[in-house]
Amino acid sequence: MTNRKGERTKELIVRKASAVFNCQGYMASSISDIMHETGLGKGGIYNHFESKEELMLAAFAFSLQTMGHFYAQALAGKHGCAQSLLSLASVFEQMAQRDVLPGGCPIMNAAIEADDAIPLLLEKASEAMTHVSDMVRLIVNTAMKTGEVAETVDTEYVTTVFISTLEGALMLSKLYRDATHMTRAIKHLKSFFSMELGLTV
Amino acid sequence: MTNRKGERTKELIVRKASAVFNCQGYMASSISDIMHETGLGKGGIYNHFESKEELMLAAFAFSLQTMGHFYAQALAGKHGCAQSLLSLASVFEQMAQRDVLPGGCPIMNAAIEADDAIPLLLEKASEAMTHVSDMVRLIVNTAMKTGEVAETVDTEYVTTVFISTLEGALMLSKLYRDATHMTRAIKHLKSFFSMELGLTV
Repeated sequence: MTNRKGERTKELIVRKASAVFNCQGYMASSISDIMHETGLGKGGIYNHFESKEELMLAAFAFSLQTMGHFYAQALAGKHGCAQSLLSLASVFEQMAQRDVLPGGCPIMNAAIEADDAIPLLLEKASEAMTHVSDMVRLIVNTAMKTGEVAETVDTEYVTTVFISTLEGALMLSKLYRDATHMTRAIKHLKSFFSMELGLTV
Repeated sequence: MTNRKGERTKELIVRKASAVFNCQGYMASSISDIMHETGLGKGGIYNHFESKEELMLAAFAFSLQTMGHFYAQALAGKHGCAQSLLSLASVFEQMAQRDVLPGGCPIMNAAIEADDAIPLLLEKASEAMTHVSDMVRLIVNTAMKTGEVAETVDTEYVTTVFISTLEGALMLSKLYRDATHMTRAIKHLKSFFSMELGLTV
């Protein structure tokens, strides 16, 4: 096996495992599931990853990378606080409609599942949520500097409300297989931006 | 073993399993974990439950019963829409502070974990979420009849916003081991009740 071919196989495993873990859960998925998805044998998997835990972390990192790509794509060319925040929200809308990341938000999935069970995954989920929060904070703080929102606005409050509403609505949309919950959540966020932040939406 | 003693043992298993599954997850917890918590051997467990799945469903039902008890306690003696909704929110606040149900909301936990992995648990989680939603709907619809909120208020919209905000904030509070996210969410819900529903909070 050339190094190049080895790298491609490793990438294939991570990509397939990322979908399996994000949809079925980290503990519920077995190496057999990954073997089935990749068409590889057990040796073919363990040739690249020392343990299921190592594969889980690589797969989670890949899911985050995918999500980061969708956020970057949504934000491209957007200006101003309301437009930027709503473009981030549109990624949650796509997740609710199962157009992207069919298993839902990888961070919420890992956060719920890893809590009290897989400490290292919980740590990675917490770091990832901080990255998402930082995007929201940056948008709000920039809007404060340009005068788009008042300087009295509490950035941490806005960040918590924004992320909580979207993550909670994504959970409801997935539970009921009904994206209406996300539609309502985004309608509410628009009202929040307008009524509490004084933004034009 | 008398029937009475058998019933008590079964109750003990369900109670302990409910805490283990809600904290560590349904797939991540093994029968050994339940054996450890109850002090019973494998036979002692399987004497009462035919399979891990049967025990999982009984444990989930027990978690729901516990949560229902806290909701009923919070609602007792409360009057009016804002006070009733905020008393339901106070149960989420207690979950965020790990004072009750340390593993967090059993419905969200089951919803995230069961999705694509344990269909029967997902169905039970969906039914349970509908019960919680029905409580919110009843409160809002009653307020409409008494004139506390306008007849134009969209009950489904209010229900989705209320539950999404709290479930999302609970996830953030648990992820960061920091109940501040729940405090912010409740502050926001008060503002939502006041600004969008015209309630006095």
